[in-house]
Amino acid sequence: MAALGEEEIIALLGSAGCARPDVCLGIGDDGAVLQPRPGYQLVSVLDTLNEGVHFPAGLPAASVAHRALAANLSDLAAMGSEPAWATLALSLPYADADWVTDFAQGFGALAERHQLALIGGDTVRGPLAVTVQLTGYVEQGRALRRDGAGSGDRIVISGVPGEAAAGLARLGATDPGSDTLRQRFLWPEPRVALGRSLAGLATAAIDVSDGLVTDLTRLTRASGVGARLCLDNLPVSEVARRVLDNAQARRLALIGGDDYELCFTVRRDDVARLPDLASQHGCRLTDIGEITTSTACVLLDAGREIEPDLCGSWQHFPEGKD
Amino acid sequence: MAALGEEEIIALLGSAGCARPDVCLGIGDDGAVLQPRPGYQLVSVLDTLNEGVHFPAGLPAASVAHRALAANLSDLAAMGSEPAWATLALSLPYADADWVTDFAQGFGALAERHQLALIGGDTVRGPLAVTVQLTGYVEQGRALRRDGAGSGDRIVISGVPGEAAAGLARLGATDPGSDTLRQRFLWPEPRVALGRSLAGLATAAIDVSDGLVTDLTRLTRASGVGARLCLDNLPVSEVARRVLDNAQARRLALIGGDDYELCFTVRRDDVARLPDLASQHGCRLTDIGEITTSTACVLLDAGREIEPDLCGSWQHFPEGKD
Repeated sequence: MAALGEEEIIALLGSAGCARPDVCLGIGDDGAVLQPRPGYQLVSVLDTLNEGVHFPAGLPAASVAHRALAANLSDLAAMGSEPAWATLALSLPYADADWVTDFAQGFGALAERHQLALIGGDTVRGPLAVTVQLTGYVEQGRALRRDGAGSGDRIVISGVPGEAAAGLARLGATDPGSDTLRQRFLWPEPRVALGRSLAGLATAAIDVSDGLVTDLTRLTRASGVGARLCLDNLPVSEVARRVLDNAQARRLALIGGDDYELCFTVRRDDVARLPDLASQHGCRLTDIGEITTSTACVLLDAGREIEPDLCGSWQHFPEGKD
Repeated sequence: MAALGEEEIIALLGSAGCARPDVCLGIGDDGAVLQPRPGYQLVSVLDTLNEGVHFPAGLPAASVAHRALAANLSDLAAMGSEPAWATLALSLPYADADWVTDFAQGFGALAERHQLALIGGDTVRGPLAVTVQLTGYVEQGRALRRDGAGSGDRIVISGVPGEAAAGLARLGATDPGSDTLRQRFLWPEPRVALGRSLAGLATAAIDVSDGLVTDLTRLTRASGVGARLCLDNLPVSEVARRVLDNAQARRLALIGGDDYELCFTVRRDDVARLPDLASQHGCRLTDIGEITTSTACVLLDAGREIEPDLCGSWQHFPEGKD
């Protein structure tokens, strides 16, 4: 195994991403110099993935890079923003040439699909950890926010939530169903184009990174409203039903993280616009419930209201005294 | 010890920093929304500090925050940029309330002095690591770069390099001299105002984070030139001479990191402008040598040219095969 020096790492990573005319000075100085597009606002997001916390040890390097970038692209998507510039902090216990090459390839492939330039960063020794910070453009005053949902709005989810969590649960399994689910965990596709289409349609939006109920609750809390989720309408992965079981698949659809789908709200009159949007983006868009005047998030299961069981949903720091 | 939940951590950190009119939407959504000032370019920098690599375990939380922010402010300074927005990735093994409170205080105090808004970030479980990403403004085409040094230019260093490294070496000592040096390691003051003054004066600039010789070599390499450093002119800390010895103090002035001084080049005719600049900013500005047409960096010691001994200077990933 060849060990790389810092400059070799930077050279490998520096080629991962697009050239862009609004980058006046990229990697190689104390900072990057950027020429923001007139008439636009900027959106800034940041996410960290730590090995052993956000992904298991031994994940392919290209997937580690892809997932770290996807998590951030998904945040831009949830803001309705067009990706532009990336900075990257990469902490590595050992700079193995093959690993860094694969990481750069995984980062570069997804960055290029979204016209993203890698403009700078830092490579340091330490436990494996990836922090990505992205800046994107949004038209003046058109950013999607969490705090605009109003009573009576319908709640919409893109795609089929829960498959990434099912894939993580079946990471070592070799059957074809598990393989399908595993791909969803390893190579999530952030809904950037969909997010760009939601300006003027969604009253509020959030990306589902920590689980549908957890993230929807963040949206309703920010909006000062509640939600009634209709379990019968919830899209549940057929593959997950088969590989796991029906109850577990439905549970993961509610609380599983890492799908990077979008959850958003639309006025009741705008529900009719969803099928066209779904076909334009080649993804399911499902009406799964409504915003209420209460401040609780309840599940409607066969006509009966139940409080969601959040045990097992994602908490970075479980609260408590000790 | 009280353990904090993620939202409590965010609440503590969220108050660390300034309110700014160009922040349309700060912490609390999927991303921050920013209104860039017309007619300016942006400068983006990012630095990571890992416990046990960039600072020893057990450092006060306020100093950890200060140092992570100072390292990034220093990069903005070296670009001649005015600080504006910060994002923060904080990885913590355990969210102790006192530690996070002190961290937020250390971050906030330095952020406020530089009119910096904390606009977002991520708090995750993991080994203690701090990644800060800053964005600043710079007047159109006025960014300081590494690649403009020309043969005959004079090399200038701000302040007294080597004191922070001496302070790290004397971290546990209790004598007054060691205490003075330790303050330089724990609470470095980035040269933001000086950097802002260098537009139109400095032909090239870099901040000294990894040691004067290492960082000057980066500047000369980017500029395609060499350097001749005059050891007799090098400012060497009197306190370090006393606490350590003369040879060690001089060695740390050449290769010690973490001072966050600026090293820049000026045309020979502009050397006369340095005293006014020094008195304006209350810091020493010392002419320590000249840019040469060679591509080597040599030291002039009592009239004799020697190659600098870089052993012990900072390398994040020492190169080599194994």
